[in-house]
Amino acid sequence: MADTAGDGTGPRAVTIASIAQSAGVSVPTVSKVLNGRSGVSPETRARIEGLIDQYGYRRPPHRSNVVELVFRELETMWAVEIIRGVERVARRNRVGVVVSGYGREDSDGAGSPVEDTVERRPHAVLSVARLSERERGQLTASRIPFVVFDPVDELPDDVAFVGATNWRGGRSATRHLIDLGHRRVAMISGPDHAFCRARQAGYTSAMAAAGLAVDPELVVSTQLTREAGCAAGRALLALAERPTAIFAANDMQALGVYQAAREAGLAIPADLSVVGFDDLPVVAWMDPPLTSVHQPLAEMAAAATELALALGRGEPAPQLGMEIATTLAVRASTAPPPGAPRPSE
Amino acid sequence: MADTAGDGTGPRAVTIASIAQSAGVSVPTVSKVLNGRSGVSPETRARIEGLIDQYGYRRPPHRSNVVELVFRELETMWAVEIIRGVERVARRNRVGVVVSGYGREDSDGAGSPVEDTVERRPHAVLSVARLSERERGQLTASRIPFVVFDPVDELPDDVAFVGATNWRGGRSATRHLIDLGHRRVAMISGPDHAFCRARQAGYTSAMAAAGLAVDPELVVSTQLTREAGCAAGRALLALAERPTAIFAANDMQALGVYQAAREAGLAIPADLSVVGFDDLPVVAWMDPPLTSVHQPLAEMAAAATELALALGRGEPAPQLGMEIATTLAVRASTAPPPGAPRPSE
Repeated sequence: MADTAGDGTGPRAVTIASIAQSAGVSVPTVSKVLNGRSGVSPETRARIEGLIDQYGYRRPPHRSNVVELVFRELETMWAVEIIRGVERVARRNRVGVVVSGYGREDSDGAGSPVEDTVERRPHAVLSVARLSERERGQLTASRIPFVVFDPVDELPDDVAFVGATNWRGGRSATRHLIDLGHRRVAMISGPDHAFCRARQAGYTSAMAAAGLAVDPELVVSTQLTREAGCAAGRALLALAERPTAIFAANDMQALGVYQAAREAGLAIPADLSVVGFDDLPVVAWMDPPLTSVHQPLAEMAAAATELALALGRGEPAPQLGMEIATTLAVRASTAPPPGAPRPSE
Repeated sequence: MADTAGDGTGPRAVTIASIAQSAGVSVPTVSKVLNGRSGVSPETRARIEGLIDQYGYRRPPHRSNVVELVFRELETMWAVEIIRGVERVARRNRVGVVVSGYGREDSDGAGSPVEDTVERRPHAVLSVARLSERERGQLTASRIPFVVFDPVDELPDDVAFVGATNWRGGRSATRHLIDLGHRRVAMISGPDHAFCRARQAGYTSAMAAAGLAVDPELVVSTQLTREAGCAAGRALLALAERPTAIFAANDMQALGVYQAAREAGLAIPADLSVVGFDDLPVVAWMDPPLTSVHQPLAEMAAAATELALALGRGEPAPQLGMEIATTLAVRASTAPPPGAPRPSE
């Protein structure tokens, strides 16, 4: 596949095989010349170079045998889960994984990390979260295909992505709380990102499906950090009529709610039920272990890598975008509300 | 530096500059030919190739502009901390970072990941934990320098490494507990790895310095996992005369002790003090936040990357190995033993 000329759709689809035939050499020999490897005599090299120019073969300009995994900031707790999933699939394909951190977008400009990526000539780029329009443009201009992992924004229809079923996840978390008997269910939502909006819409939808009105007081939007979750938790628990359950847009916020509950002298789950989102490995070690919506990061990373490798080989993608199903990991942080009849009664 | 022939010490230290001069071209042009880049006419390329062969220039065979960060298993909680530290320094040097997982050593043999690494031609390899003798041999034979990060084994003297002051860390953790008034201080140690032995020797040394005999019953060696730490904690807390403090060889074991204490109905730190080692970000969120020996992973990663890059440029390393200082992060899991007079009394 890597042997087709350019993207395979150009008017002159000259292949390495046809160059090898004309030069009277093997395909690997042409490949060596294209990739600057040694083991070819100067005369043969010159002859092959000449044919490449003569035939107008658009050399896929010296791809390195790597895919590049780009993070905005390498701070996220689940970076290692993603790296592991990507590395596993790449290794099976004998492709290396370059991991790079792009830093904040406002640091755009000359010498930006995307230029370094372009120079590294990976088969494809796998971007965790946001790529600016400028960055996407530069990759496209350099004919480096890319896949967006767990997109933060709405993307143009032609951008390949792999995400999780955020809406379904938010809905099942909320329904779990409603099924336990909770009526005053609060949500700590996140910034105005596509995935936060989807999680919150899932919450709203589950409330509506159960015929429960959403008290606007019970929905707070804040950052996706433990500190922000703690502050939001304090505010919610200080309400005159406080919620009996809180669904947080991610696990870090939920851990912040744990702290707010401790400060307020409330026991989880006896006085307050808490559900997180992401199911980071650490949440199972908390006291009590946190009920959380499991993001299938390993499956997402595997699917995104397969997609990136296929695009890198110039294959048509079987589908351009996909969301992989979340599941609810029920642990000990959720129970019926205080004073509620047991579910069996 | 990358322009000197081979390692610069060979009998024929032909430089790119001398080839450029003979060919009547610029150094970047020779560099393009060596690296298989386009932008050189077939005739010039052939002439340069001929000179390279004639002069016996040992081409540093097409280095990719990356360092490779190798993990045995990408499971470790602090992988992301290390990746971040390495990536930051590499980016500043405009070098990419390939992250790869080598899997277990017993999967040695043909098609092993080290062969893929050799084919990727990184400037240098940075290996987290263990590299087998065979793997080290293959890298050396391919003239790819390597640095071992936080070595697990005793290494030959000529192997570059960056570690932490494990002995000092173990000593200061134990002294902290002794200073609080503890006398029955247990240690959960790890497998027979260099860093575990050093941590345990630090414990033994602090006990001896305080004139305290180490009760052999109070020292348990087990795996570095939460489950193993929990099992060891249960055994220690079931002793007729149980310890009032436990120093665990890593944080995961310490979190296991948290669970064992909960099961035994013991409060931390009122009934039992616990100290971990590593200071993973998560331990500050535990209830209570864990006192732990801080491994300076960011500094270690930065130092290891600088060292790897210097070796990759063929520079003599300022020093071949170094240990970077740990510090004790005192949090809420340590207090005077039950019934002890207050430190101020």
